Amino acid sequence: MAQLLDVPPGLKGVAVAETAVGDVRGGEGFYHYRQYDAIQLSRQRTFEEVWCLLRDGELPSSRQLVAFTGRVAKARALPANVARALPAVVALTTEDQPLQALRAAFELMALDRHLLPWIDIDDAALDEQAIVTAAVFPTLVVALYRLKHGQQLIEPRPELGHAANYLYMLTGQEPAPARARALENYLTSTIDHGFNASTFTARVVASTGADLGAAVIAALGSLSGPLHGGAPSRVLDMLDAIGTADRADRWIRDTLTSGGKLMGFGHPVYHTTDPRNTMLRAIAEELASPRLDLAVQVEQLALRALRELRPGMPIYANVEYYAAVVLDAVGLPRELFTPTFAISRVVGWTAHITEQAGHNKIIRPSARYVGPAPVGK
Amino acid sequence: MAQLLDVPPGLKGVAVAETAVGDVRGGEGFYHYRQYDAIQLSRQRTFEEVWCLLRDGELPSSRQLVAFTGRVAKARALPANVARALPAVVALTTEDQPLQALRAAFELMALDRHLLPWIDIDDAALDEQAIVTAAVFPTLVVALYRLKHGQQLIEPRPELGHAANYLYMLTGQEPAPARARALENYLTSTIDHGFNASTFTARVVASTGADLGAAVIAALGSLSGPLHGGAPSRVLDMLDAIGTADRADRWIRDTLTSGGKLMGFGHPVYHTTDPRNTMLRAIAEELASPRLDLAVQVEQLALRALRELRPGMPIYANVEYYAAVVLDAVGLPRELFTPTFAISRVVGWTAHITEQAGHNKIIRPSARYVGPAPVGK
Repeated sequence: MAQLLDVPPGLKGVAVAETAVGDVRGGEGFYHYRQYDAIQLSRQRTFEEVWCLLRDGELPSSRQLVAFTGRVAKARALPANVARALPAVVALTTEDQPLQALRAAFELMALDRHLLPWIDIDDAALDEQAIVTAAVFPTLVVALYRLKHGQQLIEPRPELGHAANYLYMLTGQEPAPARARALENYLTSTIDHGFNASTFTARVVASTGADLGAAVIAALGSLSGPLHGGAPSRVLDMLDAIGTADRADRWIRDTLTSGGKLMGFGHPVYHTTDPRNTMLRAIAEELASPRLDLAVQVEQLALRALRELRPGMPIYANVEYYAAVVLDAVGLPRELFTPTFAISRVVGWTAHITEQAGHNKIIRPSARYVGPAPVGK
Repeated sequence: MAQLLDVPPGLKGVAVAETAVGDVRGGEGFYHYRQYDAIQLSRQRTFEEVWCLLRDGELPSSRQLVAFTGRVAKARALPANVARALPAVVALTTEDQPLQALRAAFELMALDRHLLPWIDIDDAALDEQAIVTAAVFPTLVVALYRLKHGQQLIEPRPELGHAANYLYMLTGQEPAPARARALENYLTSTIDHGFNASTFTARVVASTGADLGAAVIAALGSLSGPLHGGAPSRVLDMLDAIGTADRADRWIRDTLTSGGKLMGFGHPVYHTTDPRNTMLRAIAEELASPRLDLAVQVEQLALRALRELRPGMPIYANVEYYAAVVLDAVGLPRELFTPTFAISRVVGWTAHITEQAGHNKIIRPSARYVGPAPVGK
């Protein structure tokens, strides 16, 4: 029997692969996509431009961007067969399962698009599947939401950007530019973020040569885990429960001393301010979010209480904290917060799947057997 | 920035977790479930007995087995809502997507069963979900197959064992005991096999606290990867292409010298005879499979040709080789070979998910960034 190599629990700090998609420098409060500061990109570029960057490794020329945007816009439409099947998914869905419903809807889409194992197709076909898959995510999310609420589906508009079109399909109204841009900033800033659990899952599945759909659905599964994707909607629930700033300190300390958790605080990688949060807070200010004042006060009181009651643990507000405020301010209902995160992260997953396919080695670890010794051996 | 720990590519030989479910000793040609030789279990016990062993860590008493068998039998029925939705899945499915269709069907089932994140439910609820999930797999596989072929669904029979009931639902005929037992041997011997890619995937997803369905669907995705689950049906395709024993040596050498691959040879863990194969070959003999003579001759010629043409590489027939012969002999169509593997492996996945939930630590590795240095950093 070959010797097993022991590593830290949960593979913490273990470099399981090489990547050129991007990286997170937790200690510096910095992360990047390819060679660019991700926050700067989010502020200065469109979602489609950054999507190109993650795919190709370089920012697109104007001509490339026009061509790419056209491909994305074309791939947004829901195939008729899938649209016909969605009511059956919705009929099975309860309110607390938006991500599970998205998984089921996406599987129907994967069947319809006839996604074959990447190992059996060429690079161009895999690239096309990656675009088509990520492009249709907002359409699937909105279709499930509208059908669940007894509303007619709204056709996507090809001339709108990814974020604006998402809001348009949801409401039937072209969104105010500031709202569309705020959502675009959020989406762009959350496309990728190191080897988090869902991205790693996508790469493990892709490493078997499976179809891109298999890797994406697996990543969606990881994202539905409370320890990974969490639930930004719970931040709003918390702010609602607190109600007003004068009640905040008491509420926070009661929660912490009774062993409860504050929603939107702590991250496995950042031990300093999450740079996404700084940006999202600024965006919430730009949008004049009515929840912002309370959120800022709760954050300050929470950080002070955490320092006192959980000394030695560096805990900061994480991306979910101000993401919740921003997503609320752009008009998204809470049940769409995590699916909206998936709309952006799927672009990162597809970049990682494509990278894995390009330099593949099956990810097949071992485990240390710790049960009783086999009988007779 | 914390130092990254480099490990062998693909995590080969890296102990990513502790497990008491079982282990594989590749060098010895031996694997076990809990403390028992898996091949002996497969020959001497029922599928349900071994399922209990994997769940509980101990073989059941007669009374426990009766109770468990009753729970499994009850959980086999397809909920009416799912049955209504399946034709929409089938309408989207082409012949080469049996596993993708199973993923979609299973997601509908997961919605209907309202599987919530395990971290939000108690152990008994998770155990119930594990049983229900694995129990319904054969029903889903058969339902998709029969609907695809324009046949009516057949209700499961609670008094039949897991394997016999599967064959019964497929054909409407109670299978000959020898066939049912042969399939049961196969299913039992493939429930678990170390930290293969699908089992590892299930544990990664489970480690996020996600629902059991998310972990199972992700594992199914890995299984659809040709580098993991492969396709035992391709072994039969190869035997068909060879046709007769006198053509075998020429066919094999032509394939190898032109850079082609022989189906059913080679395994990442065993560098000796796969013990499952020894058992399956004996079963194929017991069933008097008409393909066995050719399969045995092709195996011998292939091993000789591999020694000559790929010297230094220890290559043996893997589990898929005689599995294909056995599954064919029990009357299963080729398109059901990999779904049948999933029927058994899902029992192993659920045992691993439950174990992961019991000692959870999120699996969140890192990656080494190898792209251009970020601008300005």
